[in-house]
Amino acid sequence: MTASGPTMPTGQAISALRPLAARLDPDGLLGAWQERNAKATLPHVIKALDEHGNLANLRRVTGDFDGPFAGMWFADTDVHKTLEAAFWELGRTGEENPFLADVAALLEKAQDPDGYLDSYYQTDHRDRQWSELHYSHEMYTAGHLIQAAVAAARSAPGTHAAEQVVSVARRFGDLLVRRYAASTAEAVDGHPEVETALVELYRVTGHRPYLDLATSFVERRGHGFLGSDRFGPRYFQDHVPVRAAPEVAGHVVRQVYLLAGAVDVAVENRDHDLLRVAERLWDSALSSRTYITGGQGSRHRDEAFGDPYELPPDRAYAETCAAIGSFQWAWRLLLATGRAKYADEMERLLYNGIAASTATDGTAFFYSNPLQLRTGHDGSEEDAPSQRLRWYSCACCPPNLARLMASLHTYLATGGPAGLQLHLYAPGTFTAGGQTVRVETAYPWSESVTLSVTDPAEGPWTLALRVPAWCADARLTVNGSLVRSGAQEGYLRLTRTWRAGDRVELTLAMPPRLVTPHPRVDAVRGTAALARGPVVYCLEQADLPAPLAAEVFEDLILDPSQPPAAVGSGPAPVRLDARIRVRGGEAAATVPLIPYYLWANRAPGPMRVWIPLS
Amino acid sequence: MTASGPTMPTGQAISALRPLAARLDPDGLLGAWQERNAKATLPHVIKALDEHGNLANLRRVTGDFDGPFAGMWFADTDVHKTLEAAFWELGRTGEENPFLADVAALLEKAQDPDGYLDSYYQTDHRDRQWSELHYSHEMYTAGHLIQAAVAAARSAPGTHAAEQVVSVARRFGDLLVRRYAASTAEAVDGHPEVETALVELYRVTGHRPYLDLATSFVERRGHGFLGSDRFGPRYFQDHVPVRAAPEVAGHVVRQVYLLAGAVDVAVENRDHDLLRVAERLWDSALSSRTYITGGQGSRHRDEAFGDPYELPPDRAYAETCAAIGSFQWAWRLLLATGRAKYADEMERLLYNGIAASTATDGTAFFYSNPLQLRTGHDGSEEDAPSQRLRWYSCACCPPNLARLMASLHTYLATGGPAGLQLHLYAPGTFTAGGQTVRVETAYPWSESVTLSVTDPAEGPWTLALRVPAWCADARLTVNGSLVRSGAQEGYLRLTRTWRAGDRVELTLAMPPRLVTPHPRVDAVRGTAALARGPVVYCLEQADLPAPLAAEVFEDLILDPSQPPAAVGSGPAPVRLDARIRVRGGEAAATVPLIPYYLWANRAPGPMRVWIPLS
Repeated sequence: MTASGPTMPTGQAISALRPLAARLDPDGLLGAWQERNAKATLPHVIKALDEHGNLANLRRVTGDFDGPFAGMWFADTDVHKTLEAAFWELGRTGEENPFLADVAALLEKAQDPDGYLDSYYQTDHRDRQWSELHYSHEMYTAGHLIQAAVAAARSAPGTHAAEQVVSVARRFGDLLVRRYAASTAEAVDGHPEVETALVELYRVTGHRPYLDLATSFVERRGHGFLGSDRFGPRYFQDHVPVRAAPEVAGHVVRQVYLLAGAVDVAVENRDHDLLRVAERLWDSALSSRTYITGGQGSRHRDEAFGDPYELPPDRAYAETCAAIGSFQWAWRLLLATGRAKYADEMERLLYNGIAASTATDGTAFFYSNPLQLRTGHDGSEEDAPSQRLRWYSCACCPPNLARLMASLHTYLATGGPAGLQLHLYAPGTFTAGGQTVRVETAYPWSESVTLSVTDPAEGPWTLALRVPAWCADARLTVNGSLVRSGAQEGYLRLTRTWRAGDRVELTLAMPPRLVTPHPRVDAVRGTAALARGPVVYCLEQADLPAPLAAEVFEDLILDPSQPPAAVGSGPAPVRLDARIRVRGGEAAATVPLIPYYLWANRAPGPMRVWIPLS
Repeated sequence: MTASGPTMPTGQAISALRPLAARLDPDGLLGAWQERNAKATLPHVIKALDEHGNLANLRRVTGDFDGPFAGMWFADTDVHKTLEAAFWELGRTGEENPFLADVAALLEKAQDPDGYLDSYYQTDHRDRQWSELHYSHEMYTAGHLIQAAVAAARSAPGTHAAEQVVSVARRFGDLLVRRYAASTAEAVDGHPEVETALVELYRVTGHRPYLDLATSFVERRGHGFLGSDRFGPRYFQDHVPVRAAPEVAGHVVRQVYLLAGAVDVAVENRDHDLLRVAERLWDSALSSRTYITGGQGSRHRDEAFGDPYELPPDRAYAETCAAIGSFQWAWRLLLATGRAKYADEMERLLYNGIAASTATDGTAFFYSNPLQLRTGHDGSEEDAPSQRLRWYSCACCPPNLARLMASLHTYLATGGPAGLQLHLYAPGTFTAGGQTVRVETAYPWSESVTLSVTDPAEGPWTLALRVPAWCADARLTVNGSLVRSGAQEGYLRLTRTWRAGDRVELTLAMPPRLVTPHPRVDAVRGTAALARGPVVYCLEQADLPAPLAAEVFEDLILDPSQPPAAVGSGPAPVRLDARIRVRGGEAAATVPLIPYYLWANRAPGPMRVWIPLS
């Protein structure tokens, strides 16, 4: 098992926390998701790349296939993201997927002598290379290739496949530097992504021009280099310089990818001003443009954030890739600042906005993640279906999930010689500063997290445990004795010289919560949502008992006078029993609400997170 | 003045009512709009056709221009709609716009020998003629040409320009018949429009093959002749046969144009079944997919109706052309059935959904007509701006308004030898069955409509006056004496032998109304709207007095305990004074609400039709 994942700041970087890799038990929820990803999602995605022509597109370049180009012009990126996922899997488990060697060889063979590698522009459209950067995704494609190489370098250093992919990615990166590093080369890609990739490539190689180019790409935005089209310059993230942006805006995935890259640039350059900009924009997103699920993006038409408090549950775009990008952005801010609110958001995204995207069997996915499905929904739109689909014409999300889940064990904790900081709770093994801690828990279903020291460090060592903002009552015992220690800035901290067998019990009270929306959010006025711990719940038609099943779903209301009750405590998902009535009618029943992320795994049908109160 | 406008069913048609043309006084609101259209909108549109290359596109075909094609591939239709408007103006006023002769000659010169006329497919894309009907709009283009010819034939029979345009349109119509009349020619256009045009051409010419082809086009839908694309078959109105459709769906303009054509086909074929289908679908649209303004279409992405009760005010698409199409559909159903509900809807559309599209000066237009503009709206999107624009890249709406307004005087009343039916109230002169009635009123601001008989008919003659559904108290006097006559099916009817100078006073009580939304419309739960008579009101930031102007617009709430008061009675627009408070605060003030259609004529700023109640 390697000790590294995505986002490894150098020793010179602004860095409050240092990432570390855990080993997750497969019987915890997060570990089970990681196993499902390895056993179901990743094989499904690899198969899909073959069936949908992504690999054939590259074989057109090498002359080994003579059919037409298939899919989106940036179809290579699905290959690169899958390659990244397979490398993380190799690092995590030691199991080498034959896909790695095959694709590494294919990429090496397909690459132009100058380092260019983009199968769309290498075949039918050579004349348009580098000529339509607002639209081409060429650097976005380079970025995902580089991220695969970063995974290779960190997960499988010295292997032939890793060396091939790193060489290919460096050649592409060097081409970018040659073309675009000069300050007179005032160009930038319409879809951000290469910024964070170049910083990571700098981290892996120590080659400073990659960092400098990423810095230029962040700074060049907002100066009109991309022009405009029917969706305006916000779509391309070219409406305002990053440092001057008053709020998040435009295409959500592009915005959050750009700001993740801006944090990477800021920390490596020790640019505290730029880091503060990223923090300010994160606050703007969270205060008025984020769903209760962590999802972001209110508009289907241009995949945009939308106006402040414009958060329709039925027409939520909340793209899966936006949730993944937002998770990665929050992780970078957590590492840089150590602030618990970023870990809170990662947790919310993980159990809601991200988790909902994947079917329980791991082989079907939502692209868009609405918080409501209406009675009579037509279900005709690919990006707002009533059921998860096996694949998409724009298939960015499934391989993005695969690479996130394959590296999930590197996002839970941080640490160093002085101790361990646990941000996300899952059963597994965590090692920092020579001390190893075992975590046992049925979280997020159970309130209780048990930690036991197996290998103690020498001398004082601090265990920091995050108390989520939703938790009003956190209790801590050490070897059975209650510790009177209030959380400071979101963490309970225990500093002592530990002994093998020391046992810490953390109890995070999780009474069901009735959440009322911000009054400016018109779309859900007069409703409430139910949550427990980090998990948001939903009412799904499939769960309606007889007296209500005959009613129109749209006429159901929540009776808040009868508090919802949690049923179960893990390992199966806890449900919430709530009293549901019919507006203006007599029918009523106690109905089980299920975790939002589990919706649409039975028959397609209406669903609501926000339930009317009267 | 000609006595005819669009939609003149033949004597054989199913027809409860027969259209007639009025002469509107220019000091009434509708007459003023018609004057503004003639003096400002039509000249503006004609100028824009020159500036934006629509006319040059046709000159490329004749070899008189060698620049590139400009605008949308269906840019010819903006020329045709403007031509139609200019012909209606000629018929209404006798003033011949030089645009008529110029364009008639240009069209004649540009037409192919076989009758084809579509400048996009006649120049760079000849190889694609008739090969991409799902997308090409070729028959949609033919339809608008035909409608211009129908206006020519009815407004200026015998003039050279009219004869030219009618000949050109017939040649194109004959080409369609040759290509597509055979039952084996299983083709139909992706954008309905030609159906209603062909029926009208049949009405003008008596040539039955036009009617039969229109009938085929209605019947061929829903059989998969158009295939699908990313928006699915609903977008093309090809998801279900018209007769089997359970509800309106898909692209709104296409749906309402198709159903207007279906009514035309039904009445001329005396097909009562198809007429009932159109009535049923109209009910489905009105019951769950229509805004309080009459606007339709909840989705920007695919310009679609959306799901039942999915009616977001901020993201209302409510395209101007959809409102115009809905008005034309309702008019056809009114003529066919005589049911007052269709006239009610025409009135609602006219004073709200349609009126809002045009700036007070008549030269700027909304494409999309939202019912709310948020604080912080980015204003970047062409189809959802915060201000009306002078023109659009897809400029379908402005010339559509021009042709509607130029023929508006033909949509107000119906009649025949036995009497007059007044559906929409405006000062002007109405003649039916040899009797002329003068109408004086400041409607919709005034409750009072005065009718006086100038030229009486011989013998009994019935005056029917619509009582709008919003009116709970209608009073009628004849020569000063109260007539105790309840409205029957939406109309007050007076049958008598009239004398010159007979005077009828209709009073339609218009207390301000607090309208609460249907409880299934999540997007406006917990709000209310204000209306008076047929006019919907809105709160606009520009009207906030000092104590509220400093507050965030999104925190304002309506205090329903203080009833709103109407201020004014015409001819200037009546405003409604309502008590507005700040949510959770002390500030409060009485604030003037303005008619919704007048919003965004001052500084751009937040606006709401639906105002939160707490």
